[in-house]
Amino acid sequence: MTPVLSGGEIILWEFLGTAALLLFGVGVVANVILPRSNADGDTSHWVLIVIGWGVGVLTGASIADATGGHINPAVTIGLAMAGKTPWSDVPFYLIGQFLGAFVGATLAWLVYKLQFDENREQNEGTLGIFSTNPPIKKPVWNLVSETIATFFLVLFILVAPYQSPANYAAVTALVIGIGAALGGPTGYAINPARDLGPRVAYAVLPIPGKGSADWGYSWVPIIGPIIGAVLAGLLSLALPTYS
Amino acid sequence: MTPVLSGGEIILWEFLGTAALLLFGVGVVANVILPRSNADGDTSHWVLIVIGWGVGVLTGASIADATGGHINPAVTIGLAMAGKTPWSDVPFYLIGQFLGAFVGATLAWLVYKLQFDENREQNEGTLGIFSTNPPIKKPVWNLVSETIATFFLVLFILVAPYQSPANYAAVTALVIGIGAALGGPTGYAINPARDLGPRVAYAVLPIPGKGSADWGYSWVPIIGPIIGAVLAGLLSLALPTYS
Amino acid sequence: MTPVLSGGEIILWEFLGTAALLLFGVGVVANVILPRSNADGDTSHWVLIVIGWGVGVLTGASIADATGGHINPAVTIGLAMAGKTPWSDVPFYLIGQFLGAFVGATLAWLVYKLQFDENREQNEGTLGIFSTNPPIKKPVWNLVSETIATFFLVLFILVAPYQSPANYAAVTALVIGIGAALGGPTGYAINPARDLGPRVAYAVLPIPGKGSADWGYSWVPIIGPIIGAVLAGLLSLALPTYS
Amino acid sequence: MTPVLSGGEIILWEFLGTAALLLFGVGVVANVILPRSNADGDTSHWVLIVIGWGVGVLTGASIADATGGHINPAVTIGLAMAGKTPWSDVPFYLIGQFLGAFVGATLAWLVYKLQFDENREQNEGTLGIFSTNPPIKKPVWNLVSETIATFFLVLFILVAPYQSPANYAAVTALVIGIGAALGGPTGYAINPARDLGPRVAYAVLPIPGKGSADWGYSWVPIIGPIIGAVLAGLLSLALPTYS
Repeated sequence: MTPVLSGGEIILWEFLGTAALLLFGVGVVANVILPRSNADGDTSHWVLIVIGWGVGVLTGASIADATGGHINPAVTIGLAMAGKTPWSDVPFYLIGQFLGAFVGATLAWLVYKLQFDENREQNEGTLGIFSTNPPIKKPVWNLVSETIATFFLVLFILVAPYQSPANYAAVTALVIGIGAALGGPTGYAINPARDLGPRVAYAVLPIPGKGSADWGYSWVPIIGPIIGAVLAGLLSLALPTYS
Repeated sequence: MTPVLSGGEIILWEFLGTAALLLFGVGVVANVILPRSNADGDTSHWVLIVIGWGVGVLTGASIADATGGHINPAVTIGLAMAGKTPWSDVPFYLIGQFLGAFVGATLAWLVYKLQFDENREQNEGTLGIFSTNPPIKKPVWNLVSETIATFFLVLFILVAPYQSPANYAAVTALVIGIGAALGGPTGYAINPARDLGPRVAYAVLPIPGKGSADWGYSWVPIIGPIIGAVLAGLLSLALPTYS
Repeated sequence: MTPVLSGGEIILWEFLGTAALLLFGVGVVANVILPRSNADGDTSHWVLIVIGWGVGVLTGASIADATGGHINPAVTIGLAMAGKTPWSDVPFYLIGQFLGAFVGATLAWLVYKLQFDENREQNEGTLGIFSTNPPIKKPVWNLVSETIATFFLVLFILVAPYQSPANYAAVTALVIGIGAALGGPTGYAINPARDLGPRVAYAVLPIPGKGSADWGYSWVPIIGPIIGAVLAGLLSLALPTYS
Repeated sequence: MTPVLSGGEIILWEFLGTAALLLFGVGVVANVILPRSNADGDTSHWVLIVIGWGVGVLTGASIADATGGHINPAVTIGLAMAGKTPWSDVPFYLIGQFLGAFVGATLAWLVYKLQFDENREQNEGTLGIFSTNPPIKKPVWNLVSETIATFFLVLFILVAPYQSPANYAAVTALVIGIGAALGGPTGYAINPARDLGPRVAYAVLPIPGKGSADWGYSWVPIIGPIIGAVLAGLLSLALPTYS
């Protein structure tokens, strides 16, 4: 399915795709949270947020079509577990994904720079624009939420019958639904790069009055998705085959 | 259309698919109803709910593609009426569907466990997160609503021209529309497993301060969808064929 | 494209499809307008309404696939103008469409009967659940709105490059957009059967405390869509062909 | 991909498609902004706006399928940079696009004429129905926002794997996402014709009590999208090819 690419090409495509994902994802949360942007004042934040992140998946995966459009370390690991991506390619995927996530979040900050600057008195609580930030923070149960959500994401990718590129649209719909249905407790990282890249960006970008990057929580949206992906990969190997 | 599968394989695939359906469906209602989850505070609950249940259909049906993605006893019965699923397979479908619905609802409870626990003072009214709960409860007219909605769901499945897997996307859109248009009076069970499985889960799960499982109403979302499916199956047999 | 069908078969399929369209369309407006239905209390009515009507198009057109899924006299007339539907079939289409629209609206009333009955003190203003009812009623300008909206609906159907059944999804999206963008002034009939069938239903159904059926306005959503369809049909004949 | 068309045919198709785009885009903003239209009173404006503009892209691009459905000078320039549209055709595309944008905005005004006339006391702030109008106006940063958004739009069109006509649906989703995620700071022109055509229309149409057309800002939504398109075109030439 995936053509033979050099390590550098894998990094390049996954970088571009994951940058698009994070540009859209961080952007849509900025749009609903920050004062004086156009969605400010709307009263249905979550509907717009799941649309924005969903289209981020479509855009990023489609741009990264050369590499199969992973744009998520959990997807790469799940596909490797299931024997569908060579383990030797995995490091290149991950490098591209984490770099792209950082750069995409930075681009979103540039798009909303005027809004961040205007909001300098209230930027203390803006971590949630960049990385996930559970309303009730209890790492073990937050980990359970992330694991279950990512398990179904990766299981879907491994067993659903869609051919490329229709699979990108199907996964887009799935991620919209994960946001709507399973995003309540943790903000649905379901993707280690999606959380870590923007967290680093939040730590280093010159956002006036910004708050903590909350490194104490940062392992949950990395480990939970990886556990979910490994479990889905193992299950897919155990499932009966059918033509 | 459906490959030859053993009874155990039918149970397995329908179990996985229906678990996904209920995980998403119960999850999205928990997200909008329970305090301290991310969609709490939004003012357009129903839009998010129909999206969540719709993607649950897409996810569950796609995962259960090996069995044709029924994930609903009414669909299985309608297809059997129309001669498209062997009656001898029906029990295996139903076992998988009811078990999956119970487990999916339980997974959704795990995802939202912190929110349920925080809400212990107000969990009396949380049955509606799990099973359907009509705003005006008059069983005969509630039955009429469920029958009409399911009739069109099954008629669509029997006569619409979509090939697999595009049919899953079409039914997803249909179920979003059923929720938007016909979900007002009863909460659109349109699926006996979708209602009974989570109702049992609600009865047995350790949700602090939970209310009654309202068994007196539980027959309506079982019988209504079955009547609708039987009527649609009969109509489909009477319709003229066309190439 | 359309197989050869008898007049009775055309009536049957268009009847079923248009009944589905009106069931969904009238149902979604009932859901947002009537107290004690599930979407009551939501604050984004129009988003849900355009989704409900859009899925009504998908459902109805797919069910009526045998006849090309017109479910709208304006579409039938536009296709006849463009030479794509025989004029001799047109009466059968129109009979099925108007009968189906009446029956679909009646089914929607059955689905929401408890809500209509509970609302008996305030049913005076419920005409807008059934037929279109412009916020500012000035027939000539209302006619302009209906004409422009239907012109682009029919032009799209005549020139867009979608094969059946993907064309049903494309038209579904189009009708969602017409509702969002052009439905503000008149409520987007864009379909004479969609307005007249439910208006008759409103006049005859036993809705307690109901108001007038406003026959004085009823010609606008019939004549406007027909003018738009004729103009689009004429334009399509004048456009250059391309392979 | 695009058949050989005369200059006049290019103008004609792009004119029709861009008119449809602006009819929907200006229409949906009128629907949410102007009193006494049906979406007035809803509290989730931005969700409806991104749907309306998105369907405008689908409708316009599909109608202009003969010319590849550009309906946007930035897309035409990006495709020309990448060698996919002859530079000699570009002037015809641009003429059709700017004329269509003017006429489409005028049609939207006709659809909402009663609402504009009723609103005569408050039409001072209605420029934003027609052209983009950033909540925080600082041209350099507004230019950055428009450049980044258009860069990803054009990059997607150049590298995403969709065949026509599925590409129109993919770009529709993308534009919905750009609106949700990147439309906060400037209102997402991402299309010079989309902004200039309606701005001219606003300046000349007899809207009672209308405000300034703000020509001082008008260069930003022209230059930003062109820079983004040129950058995406250049990048696409530098990217590795893959089969």
